[in-house]
Amino acid sequence: MSSSDIFIGEILGTAVLILLGGGVVAGVVLKKSKAFGAGWVAITFGWGFAVLSGVYVSTELSGAHINPAVTLGLALDSGNWDNVWVYWAGQMIGAMIGAALVWIAYFGHFQAHLRDPAVAAAEQGTEKAGADGHRPHKGPGPVLGIFSTGPEIRSPWQNFATELIATTVLVLAVIRLGVNDDLQVTGLGGLMVALVVVGIGLSLGGPTGYAINPARDLGPRIVHTLLPLPNKGGSDWGYAWIPVLGPLAGGALAAGISRLAF
Amino acid sequence: MSSSDIFIGEILGTAVLILLGGGVVAGVVLKKSKAFGAGWVAITFGWGFAVLSGVYVSTELSGAHINPAVTLGLALDSGNWDNVWVYWAGQMIGAMIGAALVWIAYFGHFQAHLRDPAVAAAEQGTEKAGADGHRPHKGPGPVLGIFSTGPEIRSPWQNFATELIATTVLVLAVIRLGVNDDLQVTGLGGLMVALVVVGIGLSLGGPTGYAINPARDLGPRIVHTLLPLPNKGGSDWGYAWIPVLGPLAGGALAAGISRLAF
Amino acid sequence: MSSSDIFIGEILGTAVLILLGGGVVAGVVLKKSKAFGAGWVAITFGWGFAVLSGVYVSTELSGAHINPAVTLGLALDSGNWDNVWVYWAGQMIGAMIGAALVWIAYFGHFQAHLRDPAVAAAEQGTEKAGADGHRPHKGPGPVLGIFSTGPEIRSPWQNFATELIATTVLVLAVIRLGVNDDLQVTGLGGLMVALVVVGIGLSLGGPTGYAINPARDLGPRIVHTLLPLPNKGGSDWGYAWIPVLGPLAGGALAAGISRLAF
Amino acid sequence: MSSSDIFIGEILGTAVLILLGGGVVAGVVLKKSKAFGAGWVAITFGWGFAVLSGVYVSTELSGAHINPAVTLGLALDSGNWDNVWVYWAGQMIGAMIGAALVWIAYFGHFQAHLRDPAVAAAEQGTEKAGADGHRPHKGPGPVLGIFSTGPEIRSPWQNFATELIATTVLVLAVIRLGVNDDLQVTGLGGLMVALVVVGIGLSLGGPTGYAINPARDLGPRIVHTLLPLPNKGGSDWGYAWIPVLGPLAGGALAAGISRLAF
Repeated sequence: MSSSDIFIGEILGTAVLILLGGGVVAGVVLKKSKAFGAGWVAITFGWGFAVLSGVYVSTELSGAHINPAVTLGLALDSGNWDNVWVYWAGQMIGAMIGAALVWIAYFGHFQAHLRDPAVAAAEQGTEKAGADGHRPHKGPGPVLGIFSTGPEIRSPWQNFATELIATTVLVLAVIRLGVNDDLQVTGLGGLMVALVVVGIGLSLGGPTGYAINPARDLGPRIVHTLLPLPNKGGSDWGYAWIPVLGPLAGGALAAGISRLAF
Repeated sequence: MSSSDIFIGEILGTAVLILLGGGVVAGVVLKKSKAFGAGWVAITFGWGFAVLSGVYVSTELSGAHINPAVTLGLALDSGNWDNVWVYWAGQMIGAMIGAALVWIAYFGHFQAHLRDPAVAAAEQGTEKAGADGHRPHKGPGPVLGIFSTGPEIRSPWQNFATELIATTVLVLAVIRLGVNDDLQVTGLGGLMVALVVVGIGLSLGGPTGYAINPARDLGPRIVHTLLPLPNKGGSDWGYAWIPVLGPLAGGALAAGISRLAF
Repeated sequence: MSSSDIFIGEILGTAVLILLGGGVVAGVVLKKSKAFGAGWVAITFGWGFAVLSGVYVSTELSGAHINPAVTLGLALDSGNWDNVWVYWAGQMIGAMIGAALVWIAYFGHFQAHLRDPAVAAAEQGTEKAGADGHRPHKGPGPVLGIFSTGPEIRSPWQNFATELIATTVLVLAVIRLGVNDDLQVTGLGGLMVALVVVGIGLSLGGPTGYAINPARDLGPRIVHTLLPLPNKGGSDWGYAWIPVLGPLAGGALAAGISRLAF
Repeated sequence: MSSSDIFIGEILGTAVLILLGGGVVAGVVLKKSKAFGAGWVAITFGWGFAVLSGVYVSTELSGAHINPAVTLGLALDSGNWDNVWVYWAGQMIGAMIGAALVWIAYFGHFQAHLRDPAVAAAEQGTEKAGADGHRPHKGPGPVLGIFSTGPEIRSPWQNFATELIATTVLVLAVIRLGVNDDLQVTGLGGLMVALVVVGIGLSLGGPTGYAINPARDLGPRIVHTLLPLPNKGGSDWGYAWIPVLGPLAGGALAAGISRLAF
């Protein structure tokens, strides 16, 4: 694979990944969407089939990493560091394109949702305390969840550990599916990885929303910061390092386990 | 493949697609159905497995396009325009047959549902304004959703963009699954495309109900106009161009991306 | 395949089919089950994976028909009528064994459920009329649904048509998956058929509960009649011919379509 | 396969199985989890994809038994008892590691959940009787369900029978998927077994929560006893023999059926 093929493939694959992955959250979260309130099963399968779609549009060009933690894990496992920066650059650009496409596909729903007074108050952190005296902290608004992940219980090292554990499972599965031989996901590998991602979401997504992919989180967070969304809250940059470093650490740990065990 | 094989295959495959796809909406929407209220996950998997079933009954005869946007994308990608009109004709006829079969399979439920006074009022657009002063506009009734798609927020260019984006993902995946070599979906390709369609539904179906297939929308809309359904509302012909032209534009865009990237 | 292999294989496969298929309905319907109220998506995937499991335990021995309508369709399509009665006998015996195993696996739940006074009244058709003046007709009780199918709107020819249409799709898919060459479902065929069955359930199960298999309905109905369940209602024998003849007619129609089209 | 490969493979595979399997229950059960209340469909697919993930990370090293009942069934079916104790030891160690990883991944949620006064009372069996006069028996607390299984209706022989029946289906499917030839699950076998496990959960999980694997139940139960969880209830050791002996009996019965039928 040439560097330009890898670059284009990763842009294409990661854009499709984030378009469909961010899209399912938008569909479930935004008012007036037909998928409104469809729940966690919809979100986890939506992200899994986003992986499937992203893999199949990019596999011939770049081997379908579409995740910097996968690229890191495969490089550590194989010892081949060629093109790692090309992969990472393509993944970041693709993730940003994908997040922008979610905005276009759900444009009217973003506008209607964010102009709803109750939503605007929640986004701005200015809503009144509830009956139980609980007042949501001033911080990231709910719509940010369409772009990036955030923890339900904010605790850096716990959140880091959850992302590390979840990504270790992902990258270990990717490596063991034979990807380390030729850096390609072929044939049914894409389906297997997609279903493993559904499983990771169902099982380990509860605490942090399972970034398990630095580009999946960082690219859309940048786009959230840049987009002219009405009444949007902050982009929660204080949390941004966890879904970047946690997954990278998980990818490295998976490569270590693979080299020790196999 | 002979023209007559293609014609028969596309009729058969598209009829099965629409029978099962329209059927899942009927099951979820019509009162007294065992699937009543089963929700968006049921609808999106139902449409995905409708694709799977339609593909497997038609693949040997016609290569299982069962979607004019796929036919257009493959023709543009391969440069081979033979039989395009045969595909399109078969797809339209099949879609109309499928929609009529939904009506037969759910005949009693259509009758019972549409004679319910509250449903009849909703279909006719004559229900009273709600507590919030909102009065549904006189327009397409809810039962039309069993046949054709409609937007949650009516805005032609936004709705067009959503259909274009969603169909681009679909046709890009179909092309990259190797369909461009021999115009056939073989072996596991049908499963992959089906799961990609589940993913597109979960992720991008929220705004418009994801036609992503001109025949899927236009054929059943004609049948809705023709059928003697009691108390049915209008067929919303003002919207009908979007789920035809949006998906065709998406198919063309996918072919363009494919030729540029690969 | 020898006749005794076919006989044993069909008993085994159909028993597993009905154990898992009846089991998912028991799990969703019976009180104090962990799956209580899990809904239509659970039921349709449960039946689909019941097909998957039944196919994989019987495919080497009998080719995994596990459905008299499939046996009929394949015989009509291939012209080979050897062992048809052996298939049918094994399927009926297996279905009865499977239904009895559901009773054993959920024994305590059947007892607790049926001794609940509200359930007992519903089973016996002696509950009071509801607030809307609706009084359920004296007839089949809800627990029968764990064993056999029943229509939501009782209308013989409509119910027959729904079963015929749904089974035609099933048998057409089975035939086109290459089963007609060697009367065997091999490799991934079992997965494909299972997912087609999930799709048929989601899309066409609403009116009648999709028997689409005479043995699946008749065998468990006999077992329901024989079992000493407390407070059980009738077995609804007046409806029993529809889920037998409807699917057989669908199997025959599928064979006819296949011979005409291919 | 060397004994050390088997040992390492089974530790790795069973750890992933229990991490994801226990994780989905934690996600659905613990307050403040994004998956809270996602329901039985989420749990059964989560366990199925936990099997898929566990199989794919261990298949090259150990053949991916990750279940003592599978190891027993394969040994009885093949007559080859080499390394049975190595398999079992690896499975138990892996299950304990996996359960500890669930605790780490959901650490903050365990703490927050168990310190909720209502939860603490339920765990300790000290809550007041409900409006219907029902007072939960003093016994295993709800959080134990993240680690080990428990019956909805406590009746040893019924619970034993349900585990036996469910495991017989599992091991019969594993044996018939060709595993008996080379003690390996290869290629798509992992997907098939995973979907069979989803089916068993949907269909036969209602009464006991489907251990169908002695290590899956016993290892995490030991970890539950050892962990310093606040306000945790008992570990229900009185029930612990059923999810060990029931699945082992089912594995043996499956081997017997296989040898008789094939």
